[in-house]
Amino acid sequence: MSRIYFDNNATTPVRSEVREAILPYLGDVFGNPSSAHRVGEEAKNGLDLAREQVAGLFKTRAARIVFTSGGSEANNIAIWSAVSADPAKKHIISSQVEHASVLEPLRFLAGYGYEIELLPVDSAGGLDLDRLSAALRPDTALVSLMGANNETGVLWPLAEISGICQGKNVLLHCDGVQMVGKESLDLEALGVDYFSVAGHKLHGPKGVGALYARRNVPVKPLIMGAGQEQGRRAGTENMPSIAGFGKACELAKQGLTEYSKIGALRDFLQQEIVKQIPDVIINGGTLPRLANTLNVSFKYCSSAGMIQELDARGVAVSGHSACHSGDLDPSHVLAAMRVPEDYLHGSLRISLSSCNTRQEADRFLALLPGIVARARQTFAA
Amino acid sequence: MSRIYFDNNATTPVRSEVREAILPYLGDVFGNPSSAHRVGEEAKNGLDLAREQVAGLFKTRAARIVFTSGGSEANNIAIWSAVSADPAKKHIISSQVEHASVLEPLRFLAGYGYEIELLPVDSAGGLDLDRLSAALRPDTALVSLMGANNETGVLWPLAEISGICQGKNVLLHCDGVQMVGKESLDLEALGVDYFSVAGHKLHGPKGVGALYARRNVPVKPLIMGAGQEQGRRAGTENMPSIAGFGKACELAKQGLTEYSKIGALRDFLQQEIVKQIPDVIINGGTLPRLANTLNVSFKYCSSAGMIQELDARGVAVSGHSACHSGDLDPSHVLAAMRVPEDYLHGSLRISLSSCNTRQEADRFLALLPGIVARARQTFAA
Repeated sequence: MSRIYFDNNATTPVRSEVREAILPYLGDVFGNPSSAHRVGEEAKNGLDLAREQVAGLFKTRAARIVFTSGGSEANNIAIWSAVSADPAKKHIISSQVEHASVLEPLRFLAGYGYEIELLPVDSAGGLDLDRLSAALRPDTALVSLMGANNETGVLWPLAEISGICQGKNVLLHCDGVQMVGKESLDLEALGVDYFSVAGHKLHGPKGVGALYARRNVPVKPLIMGAGQEQGRRAGTENMPSIAGFGKACELAKQGLTEYSKIGALRDFLQQEIVKQIPDVIINGGTLPRLANTLNVSFKYCSSAGMIQELDARGVAVSGHSACHSGDLDPSHVLAAMRVPEDYLHGSLRISLSSCNTRQEADRFLALLPGIVARARQTFAA
Repeated sequence: MSRIYFDNNATTPVRSEVREAILPYLGDVFGNPSSAHRVGEEAKNGLDLAREQVAGLFKTRAARIVFTSGGSEANNIAIWSAVSADPAKKHIISSQVEHASVLEPLRFLAGYGYEIELLPVDSAGGLDLDRLSAALRPDTALVSLMGANNETGVLWPLAEISGICQGKNVLLHCDGVQMVGKESLDLEALGVDYFSVAGHKLHGPKGVGALYARRNVPVKPLIMGAGQEQGRRAGTENMPSIAGFGKACELAKQGLTEYSKIGALRDFLQQEIVKQIPDVIINGGTLPRLANTLNVSFKYCSSAGMIQELDARGVAVSGHSACHSGDLDPSHVLAAMRVPEDYLHGSLRISLSSCNTRQEADRFLALLPGIVARARQTFAA
């Protein structure tokens, strides 16, 4: 029986069209895009095309796109660029539920005289915009807030957040890694200053991503060296992956209208879980969410055991962010949402993609109630 | 007629075995190595294998290898780690002929109270080791010197340099990007503290590299976030490229004994150029050099014109580092070697790989004298 992959927020299968777009760059088109000869020029053409494809997904211009090694680097560059823009500003606002690649650079800056204010969320995973507005100060260097939470899928109102920040002339970075390819985006209209994306969350390859930076917004290279990416990111361009990432963005743009169909499958799973299993909480379920994400806490369960048993039965799900799968600690996101202690340790993130089917959902639902029941017995023992 | 690619120091064609090693990670083995299920585990196995393969090329242990997005990032991490190790030490020694990804971070640090001492080279491209020794101070945070120059191929005596630094207890970083796969290396025996490598210089993919860090030598993440690479480099691992890089290292290890054969082809080219064309200087030709590299300055010539005409005839060579191919300025490496002004602007870097043949050398030699003659006419006009 084939495996069921329900962990698409951790990473996604690479589309065959993406693989096809990568292959020439592992073959004849092997040049260094910076080289002043035809071999280099052919690679440079691929780089230009990919930049157009990425920009196309965000309805922006290619010049706004800086290719990076992934979402983490993009998040780091945004923070680094914003604090470099005006070193006199020492206050940064973010939230308690951000990804580690935002929280860790901020923790680092806290050691260098920066005041880091992490906004809390309510039990639904929502943000208090009045509180954000009140937190903005003349010395606020940056607001960094994610577009969609990687664990719960909860979407924050980016247009409103952007309006608030623009009103006070504060730079806004949005970690968009998890929402890209799932939500339609017009970055120019939104008015965010920085926006991060990773290729492998939208059926592109790992190890590549991009930072969008609005016109005239400073970008300071984190990796310093030669003048690639218009001096905004040094290092020979990762041509195979960039080409695949560009293709993945092109496909995602075409597929956006269909993406909501995944929502029907997610809603079906959610309804059946709530119907078949007692004492569950749907985390973030009352707010606008990514159509593919379902985060459930089961009372008196241990996620680790459930994940292991599901894996043994051929189903891949996760407890929280893949980046922390080795941790035994509960999710910092669910902790910030004050999920009750009885539920907190028994949380599963089920994240779908267009590759998943109703049949897979049925197979999963045939397994889950028994697994939860056994987990509860173990927990009680 | 097929193209001749003589720009292997800029980048190299990807070996077919490398491509084969990459493909599974663009297919079934798409997992996130950090995920706690089989899909993740399979990817993790590939990560472990690649780390062994890279370590194998350097005769070191896998735990010493940190995967990066390439050589530039590895160089940046080494510098960043060394200055973080003891913030009281504010003196750094490097050389005038380093790669931009060493020089630029140092230039940045110069703006933050660091004293950067760039050692000169002699006209052969050699380093004065007594001068290095005399430059070391109690507050020297780091010595950063390349193993082989990317433009001339000149090799520096790493074992002696390492001995000098160890004698004064100063951290040593070596940018080994250009020497890896061409020179046999035993990093543990050499005793360097940091060593940088890039996949695409040894027939691996672009966008991946590694930093070797000796046991107990601090590594501070430049890209901060989740705990990948044992907390030394955040971001979802670039599995396709890492797998290809590992394979490229395995193949390079097997091929090292044969690599010197390339030297015969390079020596043939050099002899014929000197024989057939008057007024040339072989840059770095009197010192130990990489077997694949030939850097020639032609009196009263412009490199840009020669590169363009060679390209039109199907031959790819470069003027200097690919990272600066857009520059009109002459090479900072050759300028540091005080190549006479009459020669400086007419320099070509011819860099071979095991893919090149005697037939290609013959075709190139049939073209070059005429091209140089025309370049000289244009120059005189």
